Amino acid sequence: MRERIFLLLDAGHSEEPLARIVDIVLISLISLNVVAVIFESMPEVYAHYGPWFDWFEIFSVSIFTVEYLLRVWSAVESRNPRYKSPVKGRIRFMLSPLALIDLIVILPFYLSSLFGADLRMLRALRLLRAFRLTRYANSMNLLLQVLRDEGPIISAALFVLLMMISVAASITYLAEHAAQPEAFASIPHALWWAVVTMTTIGYGDVVPQTLIGRICASVIGIISVGMVALPAGILASGFNEALHQRRRRYEQLVDNVLEDGVIDADEHHQLHQLQEELGLSQHEAAAILKAGYRKMSHLTEICDQCGKVILLPSPDDPEGGGTTRLSKFG
Amino acid sequence: MRERIFLLLDAGHSEEPLARIVDIVLISLISLNVVAVIFESMPEVYAHYGPWFDWFEIFSVSIFTVEYLLRVWSAVESRNPRYKSPVKGRIRFMLSPLALIDLIVILPFYLSSLFGADLRMLRALRLLRAFRLTRYANSMNLLLQVLRDEGPIISAALFVLLMMISVAASITYLAEHAAQPEAFASIPHALWWAVVTMTTIGYGDVVPQTLIGRICASVIGIISVGMVALPAGILASGFNEALHQRRRRYEQLVDNVLEDGVIDADEHHQLHQLQEELGLSQHEAAAILKAGYRKMSHLTEICDQCGKVILLPSPDDPEGGGTTRLSKFG
Amino acid sequence: MRERIFLLLDAGHSEEPLARIVDIVLISLISLNVVAVIFESMPEVYAHYGPWFDWFEIFSVSIFTVEYLLRVWSAVESRNPRYKSPVKGRIRFMLSPLALIDLIVILPFYLSSLFGADLRMLRALRLLRAFRLTRYANSMNLLLQVLRDEGPIISAALFVLLMMISVAASITYLAEHAAQPEAFASIPHALWWAVVTMTTIGYGDVVPQTLIGRICASVIGIISVGMVALPAGILASGFNEALHQRRRRYEQLVDNVLEDGVIDADEHHQLHQLQEELGLSQHEAAAILKAGYRKMSHLTEICDQCGKVILLPSPDDPEGGGTTRLSKFG
Amino acid sequence: MRERIFLLLDAGHSEEPLARIVDIVLISLISLNVVAVIFESMPEVYAHYGPWFDWFEIFSVSIFTVEYLLRVWSAVESRNPRYKSPVKGRIRFMLSPLALIDLIVILPFYLSSLFGADLRMLRALRLLRAFRLTRYANSMNLLLQVLRDEGPIISAALFVLLMMISVAASITYLAEHAAQPEAFASIPHALWWAVVTMTTIGYGDVVPQTLIGRICASVIGIISVGMVALPAGILASGFNEALHQRRRRYEQLVDNVLEDGVIDADEHHQLHQLQEELGLSQHEAAAILKAGYRKMSHLTEICDQCGKVILLPSPDDPEGGGTTRLSKFG
Repeated sequence: MRERIFLLLDAGHSEEPLARIVDIVLISLISLNVVAVIFESMPEVYAHYGPWFDWFEIFSVSIFTVEYLLRVWSAVESRNPRYKSPVKGRIRFMLSPLALIDLIVILPFYLSSLFGADLRMLRALRLLRAFRLTRYANSMNLLLQVLRDEGPIISAALFVLLMMISVAASITYLAEHAAQPEAFASIPHALWWAVVTMTTIGYGDVVPQTLIGRICASVIGIISVGMVALPAGILASGFNEALHQRRRRYEQLVDNVLEDGVIDADEHHQLHQLQEELGLSQHEAAAILKAGYRKMSHLTEICDQCGKVILLPSPDDPEGGGTTRLSKFG
Repeated sequence: MRERIFLLLDAGHSEEPLARIVDIVLISLISLNVVAVIFESMPEVYAHYGPWFDWFEIFSVSIFTVEYLLRVWSAVESRNPRYKSPVKGRIRFMLSPLALIDLIVILPFYLSSLFGADLRMLRALRLLRAFRLTRYANSMNLLLQVLRDEGPIISAALFVLLMMISVAASITYLAEHAAQPEAFASIPHALWWAVVTMTTIGYGDVVPQTLIGRICASVIGIISVGMVALPAGILASGFNEALHQRRRRYEQLVDNVLEDGVIDADEHHQLHQLQEELGLSQHEAAAILKAGYRKMSHLTEICDQCGKVILLPSPDDPEGGGTTRLSKFG
Repeated sequence: MRERIFLLLDAGHSEEPLARIVDIVLISLISLNVVAVIFESMPEVYAHYGPWFDWFEIFSVSIFTVEYLLRVWSAVESRNPRYKSPVKGRIRFMLSPLALIDLIVILPFYLSSLFGADLRMLRALRLLRAFRLTRYANSMNLLLQVLRDEGPIISAALFVLLMMISVAASITYLAEHAAQPEAFASIPHALWWAVVTMTTIGYGDVVPQTLIGRICASVIGIISVGMVALPAGILASGFNEALHQRRRRYEQLVDNVLEDGVIDADEHHQLHQLQEELGLSQHEAAAILKAGYRKMSHLTEICDQCGKVILLPSPDDPEGGGTTRLSKFG
Repeated sequence: MRERIFLLLDAGHSEEPLARIVDIVLISLISLNVVAVIFESMPEVYAHYGPWFDWFEIFSVSIFTVEYLLRVWSAVESRNPRYKSPVKGRIRFMLSPLALIDLIVILPFYLSSLFGADLRMLRALRLLRAFRLTRYANSMNLLLQVLRDEGPIISAALFVLLMMISVAASITYLAEHAAQPEAFASIPHALWWAVVTMTTIGYGDVVPQTLIGRICASVIGIISVGMVALPAGILASGFNEALHQRRRRYEQLVDNVLEDGVIDADEHHQLHQLQEELGLSQHEAAAILKAGYRKMSHLTEICDQCGKVILLPSPDDPEGGGTTRLSKFG
C-alpha cells in the first residue's frame, strides 16, 4: 500500500496509467494556482470572484497538504538508502530541496490563518508553486546540470560584469553628478543607470547628458554587448555539449541492443525509458536507431507519413523480420 | 496533362523553364500582395489609389483560386501514396498544412463578399500570404527541422523563462504597487513590465522607482540576459550541426561520384540537384568537390577569377581530361 | 619604375620599409579624414576652423587623386592576367570594387567644384573613405568570406525575420489603431514599432497600450529574442569554423616545414608570411609550432618571459640545434 | 622568514592554513572597500558616518601599504628568475601589472594628503581596488587568455562596428538634421544616437522622426543585431574551446597518474593542484577521473549522495583496493 502510493507520487518514473493521471491532476492544479494568483491581484476581478478564489485556495492547499503528508509517509520506500530509516530518513527527506519547496508552498496559508498576517504578500508568495512543476520536467535537469558544471566560469564572468558595472557607475557618476544632481545623486543611483545600460534594457529614465558622460556610456555600451553575452554563450555551448552526451548515451544503448539484430519487447522498453529519461524527441531517437541499423548493414527508412522507422529486408536477412518488431517502436 | 500541371506547380523540384516561370510569377504576385497590404493601410494612399488596390485584390484572388483548384485537382499525381485515391486523396491533400495556408489566403475575400464582413480586418489577414513563400525557400526547411529537433529543450527554456517572468512580475508588483499604484495596479500590469525588461526591450513606459523595485529589476535584468539568450544559443548551435550534416551528405555523394575519377553528365546533374535541395552555396559545393578530388590524389585549383574548379593533370592521368568535364560544373 | 610603384601601393603584400611607410601614411590620412568629417559637421567648430578643414580637404583629395592615378597606371604590373592589357586591363581595374571605392572617394570634390552642388551632403559622403581602410585589414576578408559562405542560411533567417516583422506590425496595427490613431496610423507606422521592438532596441516612442496589443507585443518580444539572435549565432559559428580552418592550414605548413627537423631562413619567412596572411596572433602561431615540434618527439617549451619557443634537446638529437634556429622565430 | 612571507602573500598557490587566512582577510578588505566607496557617495550616509569612512580608509591604506612593501621586499623569493636580483629584480617586480595596480590603489591617499587634491574624485578612484581581486580568481586568467588569443578577429569586428556606427550616424544626420536641428545638431550628436541604437540599448532620448531617418534606423537596427553579437559569439566559442583544452590537460594527468592503477597521496595532491589551477569544478574533475578509470576497465560509480567516486572491484583486481584510496579524493 505505502509502496504503491510512493510509486504513484514519484513523478515521471512510473508508467502506470493511474500514476500518469496523478501527475496530470497535480500539474493542472499547480498551473491553475499560478493563473489564480495572477488574476486575483486584479482588484476588479477579486471584487467579483473573491470567494471563488478563496475556496480554490482552500481546496488547493488541502490537496497539496495531503500530497505532502503522503510523500513524507511513503519516503521510506525510496530506493535512496538515506531515506530508509523510519524517523531519521523521513526528516532527511523533509529537508531535501524538493520537499522543502512542497512545504513552503503550503505553509503561508496555515501561518496567515494562525497569525492573521498580511494576506496580499502571502498570496503572491503562492506563485512559488510554479517551481513545483520542475519536478515534472526532465529537460530542466539538463539545464541545472549545465549551470552547475559551468559554475566557476559563469561566476568569473558575473564577477567581471559586477566589477565593470561598479566602475562604469563611478565614472559616469563623476561625469554627470554636476549636470544631473538628482538622477546621479550618488553612486548607487548611477549603479541603477549602469545596470539598465549594460543589460541593454535602456529604459531611458536616466540618460547621460554631458559629453564625457556620453563618451563613457558609449564605451561601456560597446564593451558590455560583448561581456554580457559571454555567460549566455558559455551556457549555450555547455548545453550543446550536454545534449551531445545524452545522444551518445542513447547511441550506446542502441548499439548494445542491436548486437543480436533484433529488438525484443524488453529492449524496446529499455530504449523507451532511456528516451524519456534523457528527454530525447521521437525524431532524434528514431534517427539514432536508424543510424544504428545502418551500421549493421541493414537498410532502413523513416516513413514520410508516420515518422516510424521501417526496416527494409537486407540481402543477408531476406525475411526482413525486423520491420514488424520496429513498427511498434517508432 | 494533369501530370504536367502537377509538375509545373510543384515548387522547386522541376527544372523545366516553364515551371521556373510559374514559380517566379507566383513569388512576385505574393510579394506584391504583401506590399499592397502595407500601403493600402495608409489612408492617404488608399484615398488616391483605392480602386487600383481593389482590382489588384480581385486579380490576385482569381490567380490564387485557379492555382488552388489546379493543385487540388492534380494532387493525385503526387508521389506520396496518401494522395493517390481520387476523393480521399484530394481531401487529405486539402487538409495538409501547405494546402490549408493556400485556402486561408483566398477564403477571406469570398467570405467578405458573401457576408459583407469588416474589410479592414480581412485585408490585414491577407498578409498571411507571405507564408506561402515558405514553399519556395529550401533553407526554411532546415530552420523548421532544427526547431522540431531541439523542441523539448527549447520548451524547457521557455517554461523557465515564463516562470521567471511570473515570479519577477509578482515580486516587483509587491515592491512597486504602493509607489506606482497605476503602472503596477496588478500582477498582469507587472507582467507587461517584466516581459519588456526580460527581453531587454526596455520601452521605459513602466520603470521601477523604489529601492527594492530597482534591486529586483537589476537582478532580474542580469539573470535574464543569460536565460533569454539560451534558446537562441541552442537554436544556433542546433542549426550549425544541421548545416554540418548537410555538408557531410554532399561529401558522401561527391565521394561516390568520384570513385571512377570522372564526373559524367548524369552525375553532374545528381550533384547539382542535391546542392539545390540542401541549399548549399556555389562556394561550399566547389570546396567540397575540390577536397574530394584532392583525396583521390588529383591536383585541383579554384580559379581566382571565375570561381570554377580546375582539375590539373595528375601524374597518373596525363590527359587531365577531368578539367573540361568539370569546367561546366563550377 | 612602374613595377616599383605598383609594389609600393600594393597594400600588405610587400615587406619593403618604404612600402610600409606608404601604407602608414595612407591609413593615417584616411583616419584623419573620417575624424575631420565628424568634427566639420559641428557648426561651432566649422565657424572657427573652417578654412583649415577646406585646406585639409584639398590636400587629401590631391593625395588620393595622385594615388588613384598611380594605381591605374601601374595596374598592368599586377599578377592578375585580367589587368595585363594596357587599355582594356586598366579599364577592368577601374571597374573593380576597390578601385571604384577609391574613385567615389575623390569624385564628390571635383563634382562640387564643377557644379557647385550642396557641400554639406557631399562632405558627409567623404565618410565613405573609411571603407578604404578595409584594403589594409586582413581579418576583414575572413568576415566577408563567412558572410558569403553562410549567405543562403542568413538570407532565409532574414526573410523569416522580415515576414515576422510584417505580420507582427499588422496584428498590432489592428489591435492598437483605435486606441492610438496617430502612433499606429497605418501598417508602415506599425512597422517602425515592430522593428524597434524585435531588435530589442525599444526606444519607447511608440508603445502598445491596449490589452491585446500588449499580449501581441509580449509574444513577439519573446519569439524575436530567439529569432533575431539566429543570424548572429550562425555567423559566429561560421566564423569559428573558418578560424579553425585557418589554424589547420598553418598546421599543415608547420608539418611540411618541420619534416627535416630544421626551420631554415626561407621556411621561417614562409611561416611568417602565412601567419600575416591568415591574421594569426603570435600566441597562436607559437602554440601550433610547439605542437608541431612535439609531434616530432622533440621537447619544447614556451619561455615565460619572452613568449618565444624554446626547443629542448631531444634524446635523438643531443645537440638541440633547433633552439637557436627557433629563437629568432618566436 | 622572507620566503615564508612571500608564500603567505602569494595568492592561491600555497595550501597552508595561515596563507588561506591572509587571502580571506585581503579579499574581505577589498570587498569592503568597494562597498564603502559606493555608500560614501550617498550624501545622507556620509553626513552621518563620515568619520567612520575616513577611519576605515586610513586603516585600509595602512594594511595595503604594509602588504605592498612586504610584497616588494619578498619579491626576490619568487621562482621567476627576472625578480632574483635584489635591486633590479625588485624594480622589475614594481613595474609588473599586478604590482602597479597595488600601487595605484594606495597612491591617491598619499597624494591627496600631500597636495590636498579634490577628495571626491580620488575617493571614487578607490573603486579600482576591485581589480585587485583578479589576483584571486583563477577563471579570470582563462577569460584574459581568450581575449588575447582572439584579439585580431575581435579588433576586426570592432573596427567594422565603429565604421558602421560612423556611416550610420552620418546618414541619419543628413536625414534628420532638418527635422530635429537640436538632437541631430552635428555628426557627433548623431554618433550618440547610433551607439545607443546599435548596442540595442535604445534609451529613446533621440529618435528619428522622418521617413528616411526611420528607414535608415530600421536597416541599421537589423544589421547591428547580427554585427554587434559577432564579437560576443567569437569570445564565447573561443572560451568554449579553451575550456575543452583545460579538460584535456586534466585528462592527460589522470591518464598518467592511473597508469599503475593506483592514486597515491602525492598523485592525489598533483590532481588537486591542477584542478585548482585550471578552475575545474569538483563535478567535472570526478567525471574525468571516472572516465579514466573506465578506460582501464575498472568499474566505477559516482555515489549519489556524497558525489565521490567509488571504484568497484574489477575482475582483474579482486581486492578493489582503489576504493579506499579514491574515497579521500572525491
